[in-house]
Amino acid sequence: MRLRHKPWADEFINSHPEIVIPNPEELKGNWESEFKNDYPLHIEVGTGKGQFITGMAKQNPDINYIGIELYDSVIVSAVENAIAAGSPSNLRLLKVNGADLEKYFEKNDVDRVYLNFSDPWPKIRHAKRRLTHEGFLKLYESILVDNAEIHFKTDNRGLFEYSLISMSAYGMLIKDVSLDLHANMPEDNIMTEYEEKFSAKGQPIYRVEAKFV
Amino acid sequence: MRLRHKPWADEFINSHPEIVIPNPEELKGNWESEFKNDYPLHIEVGTGKGQFITGMAKQNPDINYIGIELYDSVIVSAVENAIAAGSPSNLRLLKVNGADLEKYFEKNDVDRVYLNFSDPWPKIRHAKRRLTHEGFLKLYESILVDNAEIHFKTDNRGLFEYSLISMSAYGMLIKDVSLDLHANMPEDNIMTEYEEKFSAKGQPIYRVEAKFV
Ligand SMILES: C[S@@+](CC[C@H](N)C(=O)[O-])C[C@H]1O[C@@H](n2cnc3c(N)ncnc32)[C@H](O)[C@@H]1O
Ligand SMILES: C[S@@+](CC[C@H](N)C(=O)[O-])C[C@H]1O[C@@H](n2cnc3c(N)ncnc32)[C@H](O)[C@@H]1O
Repeated sequence: MRLRHKPWADEFINSHPEIVIPNPEELKGNWESEFKNDYPLHIEVGTGKGQFITGMAKQNPDINYIGIELYDSVIVSAVENAIAAGSPSNLRLLKVNGADLEKYFEKNDVDRVYLNFSDPWPKIRHAKRRLTHEGFLKLYESILVDNAEIHFKTDNRGLFEYSLISMSAYGMLIKDVSLDLHANMPEDNIMTEYEEKFSAKGQPIYRVEAKFV
Repeated sequence: MRLRHKPWADEFINSHPEIVIPNPEELKGNWESEFKNDYPLHIEVGTGKGQFITGMAKQNPDINYIGIELYDSVIVSAVENAIAAGSPSNLRLLKVNGADLEKYFEKNDVDRVYLNFSDPWPKIRHAKRRLTHEGFLKLYESILVDNAEIHFKTDNRGLFEYSLISMSAYGMLIKDVSLDLHANMPEDNIMTEYEEKFSAKGQPIYRVEAKFV
């Protein structure tokens, strides 16, 4: 249940500027100043409650992570998750729309994009909203370093099929693909909330690493 | 059960030169003379008992089909299948090794390659034998028209994952992909023997259309 207007949510988010960056547009082209280092920056679009991005930040202290989530009520849980994990210094959240990435990042600011269990938008007339639509791939490419990768996991067969076709049509290389991630679980796999839910139901989890070339 | 030496198999095959072409190397570059028309030519490598290629020939009278199968004992069933279907005039079989396609076809002889439930060769040291290995893709490209497609179906997850990666690495376009073909069965899908067997067990059937670009 997604409550869009929790009155306390805004207040809670604003009281944690060390996690949810208040004015991210001011950091465009200058993210090292926020993290105080020049480690690679990986972002996740549609972070949800933040289990993945927090786990990744803990697992890989030499990489900076930004989780991007549109909804107040959802990002609140991600903030709580980050605090519970000890507020990793390499982790930030942005409460913004993934469609506006160019406001906050410029070419070469970002080294990798993660997409996890993105909303499927199954209707053809909504295809443009899918986070692997050509328009979004173009957007990611415009803020990524050259030859960067998108790592995408989902349980949604239709969205995954669409994404393989869309990425290939864009000229991306399908570098790695798994059609049942949990059958040969990679040791370093960090589960998202949706991944836990759907894999518990026995659904296969699909995963692809695609590279801009 | 594959009996490699049925003594009567050779005899049976030789007695049907109208179906199993005796000297295919003589038709290289000149397949119109065999079919007496210039319809597109689609080949299937690893035809097995021939249900797919026979069904395709019946379904599409304006396309010529050649099923390629290595084993006497298996191709016998494909001949029987073709005869039972009334020996379609647009269907032929070759009892040859798919690795030798260049002996029988030259550039532009073939318009499409079908692969169905190809042997998976799961061991890494056997990867070169997989019919979607780079070496085979190169071979297909050398006999196909430009921008031709490979249509590949399988139940084998490992082989399918490998094939997507191999095709993409070769520079092919992933034009269409289904990760559960029978969930949205295309009207014109012709089932192979293996497809019937594995889908009856509830296994998803994977399918890809990949294009040389
Ligand atoms: C289905 S949930 C998956 C959450 C999490 N990634 C997981 O795997 O558990 C998708 C999330 O993406 C967020 N989202 C959808 N579109 C977005 C956009 N354009 N920008 C930012 N977040 C978005 C939604 O609010 C939601 O929290
Ligand atoms: C697993 S069976 C699948 C048969 C059929 N395509 C189907 O889907 O029911 C693979 C078939 O490919 C044949 N085959 C394997 N390698 C081959 C090669 N290099 N050239 C020709 N046929 C081959 C095998 O003999 C076998 O009949």
